[in-house]
Amino acid sequence: MGMVGGGLDAFIGTVHRIAANMDGLAELVCGAFSIDPEVGRLSGEALFVAPDRVYATFEEMIEKESKLPEDVRMDFVTIVTPNFVHFAPAKMALENGFNVVIEKPMTFSLEEAIELQKIVERTGLTLALTHTYSGYPMVKQAKAMINKGELGKVRKVIVEYPQGWLSRLSEREGNAGAAWRTDPKKSGKSGSMGDIGTHVAHLAEYVTGLRISELCADLHTMVEGRMLDDDGNVLLRFDNGANGVLVASQIAAGEENAISIRVYGEKGGLEWKQHDPNNLFVRLLDQPMQVYRTGNAYQEPYTLSSFATHNTRIPAGHPEGLLEAFGNIYRNFILTVSAKMNGETPTPEMLDFPQVGEGVRGMAFVDKVVESNQSSEKWTKVD
Amino acid sequence: MGMVGGGLDAFIGTVHRIAANMDGLAELVCGAFSIDPEVGRLSGEALFVAPDRVYATFEEMIEKESKLPEDVRMDFVTIVTPNFVHFAPAKMALENGFNVVIEKPMTFSLEEAIELQKIVERTGLTLALTHTYSGYPMVKQAKAMINKGELGKVRKVIVEYPQGWLSRLSEREGNAGAAWRTDPKKSGKSGSMGDIGTHVAHLAEYVTGLRISELCADLHTMVEGRMLDDDGNVLLRFDNGANGVLVASQIAAGEENAISIRVYGEKGGLEWKQHDPNNLFVRLLDQPMQVYRTGNAYQEPYTLSSFATHNTRIPAGHPEGLLEAFGNIYRNFILTVSAKMNGETPTPEMLDFPQVGEGVRGMAFVDKVVESNQSSEKWTKVD
Amino acid sequence: MGMVGGGLDAFIGTVHRIAANMDGLAELVCGAFSIDPEVGRLSGEALFVAPDRVYATFEEMIEKESKLPEDVRMDFVTIVTPNFVHFAPAKMALENGFNVVIEKPMTFSLEEAIELQKIVERTGLTLALTHTYSGYPMVKQAKAMINKGELGKVRKVIVEYPQGWLSRLSEREGNAGAAWRTDPKKSGKSGSMGDIGTHVAHLAEYVTGLRISELCADLHTMVEGRMLDDDGNVLLRFDNGANGVLVASQIAAGEENAISIRVYGEKGGLEWKQHDPNNLFVRLLDQPMQVYRTGNAYQEPYTLSSFATHNTRIPAGHPEGLLEAFGNIYRNFILTVSAKMNGETPTPEMLDFPQVGEGVRGMAFVDKVVESNQSSEKWTKVD
Amino acid sequence: MGMVGGGLDAFIGTVHRIAANMDGLAELVCGAFSIDPEVGRLSGEALFVAPDRVYATFEEMIEKESKLPEDVRMDFVTIVTPNFVHFAPAKMALENGFNVVIEKPMTFSLEEAIELQKIVERTGLTLALTHTYSGYPMVKQAKAMINKGELGKVRKVIVEYPQGWLSRLSEREGNAGAAWRTDPKKSGKSGSMGDIGTHVAHLAEYVTGLRISELCADLHTMVEGRMLDDDGNVLLRFDNGANGVLVASQIAAGEENAISIRVYGEKGGLEWKQHDPNNLFVRLLDQPMQVYRTGNAYQEPYTLSSFATHNTRIPAGHPEGLLEAFGNIYRNFILTVSAKMNGETPTPEMLDFPQVGEGVRGMAFVDKVVESNQSSEKWTKVD
Repeated sequence: MGMVGGGLDAFIGTVHRIAANMDGLAELVCGAFSIDPEVGRLSGEALFVAPDRVYATFEEMIEKESKLPEDVRMDFVTIVTPNFVHFAPAKMALENGFNVVIEKPMTFSLEEAIELQKIVERTGLTLALTHTYSGYPMVKQAKAMINKGELGKVRKVIVEYPQGWLSRLSEREGNAGAAWRTDPKKSGKSGSMGDIGTHVAHLAEYVTGLRISELCADLHTMVEGRMLDDDGNVLLRFDNGANGVLVASQIAAGEENAISIRVYGEKGGLEWKQHDPNNLFVRLLDQPMQVYRTGNAYQEPYTLSSFATHNTRIPAGHPEGLLEAFGNIYRNFILTVSAKMNGETPTPEMLDFPQVGEGVRGMAFVDKVVESNQSSEKWTKVD
Repeated sequence: MGMVGGGLDAFIGTVHRIAANMDGLAELVCGAFSIDPEVGRLSGEALFVAPDRVYATFEEMIEKESKLPEDVRMDFVTIVTPNFVHFAPAKMALENGFNVVIEKPMTFSLEEAIELQKIVERTGLTLALTHTYSGYPMVKQAKAMINKGELGKVRKVIVEYPQGWLSRLSEREGNAGAAWRTDPKKSGKSGSMGDIGTHVAHLAEYVTGLRISELCADLHTMVEGRMLDDDGNVLLRFDNGANGVLVASQIAAGEENAISIRVYGEKGGLEWKQHDPNNLFVRLLDQPMQVYRTGNAYQEPYTLSSFATHNTRIPAGHPEGLLEAFGNIYRNFILTVSAKMNGETPTPEMLDFPQVGEGVRGMAFVDKVVESNQSSEKWTKVD
Repeated sequence: MGMVGGGLDAFIGTVHRIAANMDGLAELVCGAFSIDPEVGRLSGEALFVAPDRVYATFEEMIEKESKLPEDVRMDFVTIVTPNFVHFAPAKMALENGFNVVIEKPMTFSLEEAIELQKIVERTGLTLALTHTYSGYPMVKQAKAMINKGELGKVRKVIVEYPQGWLSRLSEREGNAGAAWRTDPKKSGKSGSMGDIGTHVAHLAEYVTGLRISELCADLHTMVEGRMLDDDGNVLLRFDNGANGVLVASQIAAGEENAISIRVYGEKGGLEWKQHDPNNLFVRLLDQPMQVYRTGNAYQEPYTLSSFATHNTRIPAGHPEGLLEAFGNIYRNFILTVSAKMNGETPTPEMLDFPQVGEGVRGMAFVDKVVESNQSSEKWTKVD
Repeated sequence: MGMVGGGLDAFIGTVHRIAANMDGLAELVCGAFSIDPEVGRLSGEALFVAPDRVYATFEEMIEKESKLPEDVRMDFVTIVTPNFVHFAPAKMALENGFNVVIEKPMTFSLEEAIELQKIVERTGLTLALTHTYSGYPMVKQAKAMINKGELGKVRKVIVEYPQGWLSRLSEREGNAGAAWRTDPKKSGKSGSMGDIGTHVAHLAEYVTGLRISELCADLHTMVEGRMLDDDGNVLLRFDNGANGVLVASQIAAGEENAISIRVYGEKGGLEWKQHDPNNLFVRLLDQPMQVYRTGNAYQEPYTLSSFATHNTRIPAGHPEGLLEAFGNIYRNFILTVSAKMNGETPTPEMLDFPQVGEGVRGMAFVDKVVESNQSSEKWTKVD
């Protein structure tokens, strides 16, 4: 594993490293951790990376690693830079034969996303996109139950991602993460929708198996002086006739990462909340609510889906959190890559992580939300 | 207290009677309980109403009661009939000098609502509209805190009323309450928005003190064969620049009355949920969440608002529920009417119940939601 | 209904009046509200009681009411005085032919309780004891499910009543309720156990249908200067071999009335919490937890017990609270008394309220807890 | 890191490996994973351990590793065998200069524990005991707040560990973990108290800083045919005069690992629950409840303790779970060992993990609980 970005001052790099380490399946062997050489050097040292494999740029890293013996060089590249530096290293890595793990949103623009998809298809390599929240076991259980028809036809979907951390103009107060995320040159067309809206758009499509077909967006920049939207509400319509609502806000003061999804079908509804991730609330018509919990060995007809159990590390009663959900993406990515390397067919459970298609889908979502927001027409179609 | 509608087979009549009885301030003395004379008679008997004051029609009731001595006749009329029979008895009652309590939505149409408002203004009488949910102490506490500026300027409001009871075509299965509520001739222009959307539109405006100025609505009839919408999502804009979302659904399978309101301001956010009505969750920036609870004698600066304590009957730790919230509307209505009868000025706490203005506002909301739903323009202005 | 005690300055009087009023089945017609004649007079006035039926003493009240015509005089007496003034008015009322509602603990001493039981048996009259918490529908559902064997044989019971309101020496700071409750001459042998321990001892026996057969108590006076225990922990053994724990504390700082009961059997467990009274959490082995909620029309095999539905006033989704639970005791008491007056047999649902037997049981519990606390032997037998 | 026990069929081995891997500070280099050589071999293979460092016995492992060059050989030994195989490998490891991580309860008997303590003291090496639950950040926050006096003097402590997994006679149904845990020859004097009671006894003493000075225990074997107690209730008294209750049950049917602690002091109370580990509920007198949450950058006076933040990996809003709490013990152990190796003084935050003293304390607790259970005296002193 080699890392682009993720120097010691970047929170998301730590998350990736813990997630990758967790199962003992990957080891950080090299990195281009920072555009600041000193930060890069210190990061490498702190992370036990050999000094000669701490590179100044991703170009240097990919070039030099390519020339190392196969059993020495990195197996894949993790890209955790700001959005505008996703495409170039991903493209170069893939073209040099490296699989890729990439932070969401996948690219800066939809065009880049589509091009990346073509490269992935051409090279046959694997790209994992870290839409973390679909890595939780109870999210996978939700998907499995809907897929089995336990709710009947889906009628309504409500997804939310309320955060409050940009309630002030933090980008002017030395918050580096806030600075690039609110800068259209680094983040992309939309602030709230690119950074967090894509997460819950993905969640809605992942859990229901439906596709958003039309939307009506209302984006806002609620903090004066900010350069990108920090808040948005979107009406949704899905390809099966269901309707929905998506809320993504960075100015929902007091909220942390209160992601939630609710799905209502003909026969019942379900609810999942990220702050309480080991519970899945299932409400079937005419029955008491059932609370499914991670790791339980329920008996038929309640048995947890293989997709849930495959992504659980320890028995019931031991709370699993975001790092484990993140680790599930890494684990499934690595299992898939290993299977492919060994000429085996990955199982559906292994393949169950967000890939380049989801990345394109996310960028299209951002594009359409921005288009809708600028339109006085109520509805904007999504392909 | 005389009652129009609310015979033994109607759930809402029971609620009104319990709410009115609760504080020993009102007594049911007469009624036109049902269009079925036998149901009317049996209802009167069961409710300890003297047989000669069980009337066949509201016209007969108002006429005959008017002629009784002042200390014998009813003091006010409660109207709990389906929506299309709200206006006529309310008008007649007011014009005969009786104060009125009326179920929401106030009337069948906006036109009726406006006319009723004129009559109320002309007669100087009092009309209470039972938007129950603003009767909860913790909702009043939320309003008071926002009014005091504890959240700063309001930026975002999310209100929801998800129910699942119309997930099937119950109006064809002998459910009388479902039958009239889904019949456009009895219910009005909208099903979900008239029946429950108005409740949360009121809640949003009551709690924030803001007015909805624009909206973008998407209504649906999700159950085949139904004659009115049973589900809707509405984007909101408020007169201070805040934005919002309103969801009202009768096909949110598995939900009971999961009303909630979340308000986000510059300095913090708050949340209230009807299924957990004695808690108010307050999240100020940079502080742990605070949970305010009904009936507590907190000390400064946490002291509960006089509007909360005035509407609480018992000390902390004793859950109060919907009937008490309902009783608060009755109590404040009666206190206001009594004060006016005695030539006194009701206190702001007494006057704190939904009145004819809120009724007009609700009917305008329904009108505009339906108009928006039929429009391909994104935004529809609300006066 | 005539009331002994419960003048305007006493919270519990208000609770009784609201509970009795709620269903329109009872009317307050007379009272001996206070030993202070002026308080008594003002209370009567505020409560719409005719001045000539506001009495100075309970003796006067019972004597004079007895002489009124049957259709005028009070039907029953409610006793809401401090514990040491329970027995005398109850005895006199019963001996004069009046049914009785009485606050818990039923009497000052076990001896009084046993004597009262004999009088009740002799007179054939009805005595209701307001152990409010067993009036909640979901508590009744818990009892019904255990009774049906859904948990299998009960193995373990944990009941708690943590309060924090006596964390300071409030009895010296003008808190009248605290003053008599901590005064052994007015309250009885135990503070915490008489006032709140009896509630949860009752709850444990009511819900499980078992009887406490042995106990081991550890009582404490944690606030210096207090005259009675304000805190206690009790190990329990039940007559079927189950074990348990009872915690009752008035110095659990920050708690309101956090009553809870958990029962574990061979096949599953259940949990109920007073601060969230409309939920019953049922955990059967090998299944997701089920959450039963008040007022739902679940279908088989989940249908709510007739004991739960009989004690619910409104459909699902409308939170019911303590006043309704209290009202259930009044309603069942009145329905039972009416049935008996009419020569009918009350149904099991009507008879489902705490009566004189439960009152004796509570006083025996207090006695044995105090005895155990003073003993160095581990176990003290109950009957 | 070398491992004794923890072959692929043992859940706890996985937990240890994930926890140790998480921060990239340790690497599994050798192991004596199983008494079954084939399981050992397969485990080593699956865990990427070089075949020549997969040993048949812990004796072989310690002996051979001792002879490897310092920079090659393992740095510490992790012991995850059943209780009766804790002492011997721990002793041998320490005597050969290896630091030790050991599962709780630390040993089979109190005598072994005391001897181990002497060896630790003599060698100056470090022993970490995996009382996982005190590794959660919000538990550390609770300890810090109590230590700062925010609750005033502690008056009452309630700790619980209810599990339901032994509700049936699973030890006869092929459940290996159940088999040794219920076998007095492998587990020790007590089943429920050794396995889970020690966890919450530790939690009570860790959070409050108090010591249990007396106890009164009631242990039960509720499942017929079982050889050790599976359930127990213990009354506690602490060295400052506080009282408490400890409940540990393996037959609390339907419960997972519902560990909780509640502490009540003169000025307020607090509550923590393992199933919701990122929340700490703080209830100060006369104030709304405050909910402290992991990872937040609260401002004064709410700033999280350095002991909480040191043990948090990622910002607020990302749930951390049991594996992170476990990882905290490993991280602090490794940081402490490294500091000592480098001749530095570990910080108090580094030293904040359970050590040999806590292990002795736990074994003494088990001893005294069993002694008390067999006694008819109410109280048994704990030194």
